[in-house]
Amino acid sequence: MLDALTTADCLTLADMREAHDRIRPHINRTPLLRSDYLDDLTGARLFFKCENFQEAGAFKVRGACNAVFGLNEAAAKRGVATHSSGNHALSLSYAASRRGIPCNVVMPRTAPQAKKDAVRRYGGIITECEPSTTSREAVFAEVQARTGGEFVHPYNDPRVIAGQATCSAELLEQTDGLDAVVAPIGGGGMISGTCLTLSNLAPEVQVYAAEPEQADDAYRSFKAGHIIADDAPNTIADGLKVPLKENTWHFVSNFVSDIHTASEDEIVAAMKTAWKHLRIVMEPSSAVPLATILKHPEVFKGKRVGVIITGGNVDLDKLPWTRG
Amino acid sequence: MLDALTTADCLTLADMREAHDRIRPHINRTPLLRSDYLDDLTGARLFFKCENFQEAGAFKVRGACNAVFGLNEAAAKRGVATHSSGNHALSLSYAASRRGIPCNVVMPRTAPQAKKDAVRRYGGIITECEPSTTSREAVFAEVQARTGGEFVHPYNDPRVIAGQATCSAELLEQTDGLDAVVAPIGGGGMISGTCLTLSNLAPEVQVYAAEPEQADDAYRSFKAGHIIADDAPNTIADGLKVPLKENTWHFVSNFVSDIHTASEDEIVAAMKTAWKHLRIVMEPSSAVPLATILKHPEVFKGKRVGVIITGGNVDLDKLPWTRG
Repeated sequence: MLDALTTADCLTLADMREAHDRIRPHINRTPLLRSDYLDDLTGARLFFKCENFQEAGAFKVRGACNAVFGLNEAAAKRGVATHSSGNHALSLSYAASRRGIPCNVVMPRTAPQAKKDAVRRYGGIITECEPSTTSREAVFAEVQARTGGEFVHPYNDPRVIAGQATCSAELLEQTDGLDAVVAPIGGGGMISGTCLTLSNLAPEVQVYAAEPEQADDAYRSFKAGHIIADDAPNTIADGLKVPLKENTWHFVSNFVSDIHTASEDEIVAAMKTAWKHLRIVMEPSSAVPLATILKHPEVFKGKRVGVIITGGNVDLDKLPWTRG
Repeated sequence: MLDALTTADCLTLADMREAHDRIRPHINRTPLLRSDYLDDLTGARLFFKCENFQEAGAFKVRGACNAVFGLNEAAAKRGVATHSSGNHALSLSYAASRRGIPCNVVMPRTAPQAKKDAVRRYGGIITECEPSTTSREAVFAEVQARTGGEFVHPYNDPRVIAGQATCSAELLEQTDGLDAVVAPIGGGGMISGTCLTLSNLAPEVQVYAAEPEQADDAYRSFKAGHIIADDAPNTIADGLKVPLKENTWHFVSNFVSDIHTASEDEIVAAMKTAWKHLRIVMEPSSAVPLATILKHPEVFKGKRVGVIITGGNVDLDKLPWTRG
C-alpha cells in the first residue's frame, strides 16, 4: 500500500492498476476527440484525451480519489488538507465529499473564481494565501497544524502520481498505438503519471512536456539537470505555476524526451483554436501542449500524438480573447 | 433507393440503416456526456449526445452525407445546392468536399460569421439573401436555375431525415434504456429522424421538441393541428428560425409527445450552464432542450433523458453573456 512517504522510484505499474480499480467508480473514462482541421494544421494525427470532462473538470480527480479512497478509516475521519492553485483543491474536495470526510484547502487569492466556487460547492473549506510558493507553504503549515487532516500534496505524492497514471492507461486502450504523448507541466504530477504508465506499457512512446515561457522552471531544470524553482511566476496558465519536487523530478529527469515552451499569446491562440475546432471548453493550461505542437511542427509531423486536455474550469465571463 | 420525392410516411428503419452504413466513414460516432451537477439541478438523469463534436460541428453532416453519397455519378457531377441558416450549409459543403463535387449555398447575410467561414473552408460557394423565408426561397430559385445542382433541402428531404435518424440509433446503443429524448426543433429534421428511429426501435421512449418562444411556429402548429409558418422570426437560436414542411410535419404530428418553449434569457442561461458544467462549446440552438427541461422539471423528474446537442458553431468573440 502506498503512503505519502513512498518514493517515486518505488512506484510500479501495479500501483497504477490498483489506483485504477480504486478510483473507477468515482471518475469518468473520458473520451478522445480528434479533428481533421487540427491534423491538417499540425501535420500530425492528434488524439485529445478530454480530462476536462471529469465531473470536477480536471484530471486531478484521479490522484485525489486515489489518495482519499486509499486512506484507512482512522485517517479518513480526520479528513484531508492541501494547497493548490485550483484544480487539485476542487478535485480533493470532490473526492472528500464522495467519501463524506472534511477537506481543507489553501488557495491563492488570485485563483480563478470558477475554481473557488467549485471547491465550495463540494464542501471544501478555503483559506486564502498570497500567490507565491512561500506564502502558500506558510499558510498551509498553519492550517494543517490546526485541522490535523492528512496532507495530500497536489503532485509530490506517490498516491497522486499513481492516480494520474491511470489517464495514460486509458489513452493507450483508446488508440491503436501512439508515437508521442504531450502533456502540460507545472509541478509534474500528470507528466510523472504519464511516464510511469508509458515507460512500462509502451516504452516506445516519447513523452513531451509543454510549459509556459513565463513559468519555465521545469524547462530550465530539465536543461540544467537539477530542480530550479521560481517563487511566483506569472502566466495565464494558472495551473502551471508551481515548481517540480523530488518525486516528479525523478520522472521528468529519467523519462521525458523534451520540454517545449510557448508564449502567452501562443497559449491563448491555441486555446481559442481548440475551443473553435474541438468545440470543448478547456482552460489555458490545457492549451499549452497544442501551442507547443504548433510551434515545433517538425517534432510531431506525421506522428500519432496523444494530447492531454488537463482541465476545463474557466471563468466564462473572463475569456482571454474578450478581455478589454 | 430514396430520392427527394419520397414522402415521409414511406421512410422505414431500413432507410435509416442504409444511411448509417453509407455515412459511417464520413461522420464521428459522437460520445455521450453527463454531469452529476446537471442531474442534481434537473432531478433527471441526462445523457447529452454531442453532435457538436462532428467535424463540421453539427448533426447535419449525417443528412448531408447521406444525400451526397447517395447520388449517382451523373447527378453527383452537377453538384449540390441548398439554402440554410448555417449548419446545413456547412455540412453539405463538408459532404460535397469529401466527394469532390461542387456545392452552392444560399445563406442569410445575418448568419454567424463562424458558419460562413466554415462553408468557405469546405469550398462551398455562398450567395447571401435577406433573413426571411421569402427572400431565401427567391434567391435560391435563381441560384439553382443557374447552377443545376441537386437540391438538398435542409430538412424537408427524406434522404436528410434518414441521415439524421442515425443519431438516435447511436444514442440507443450508447445507453441502457431511455424514457425520453429531447431535441431542438426548427424545420424538424432532427426531430423527424429521432421519431423515425425511436418509433421503430424503442416506441416506449417519449420524444419532446424544444423551441424558442420567439420562433414558436412548431409549437403553435402542434397545438393547432396544421402547419403555421412565420416569415422572419427573431431568436438567438439561429438554427431554429425555419418553419415545418410536409415531411417533417408528418413526424411531428404523429410521433412527438409535446413541444416546450423557452425564452431568450432562459436559452442563454442554459447555454452558459452547459458550457460551465459539461465543458463543451455548444450553440444557442443546442441549449433550448436544457432550457425547457429546467423550465418543466415535472415532466422529466426521475427519468432517463437523452438530450441532443445539435451543434457547436459559435462566434467565440460574440458570446451572448459577454455582449455589451
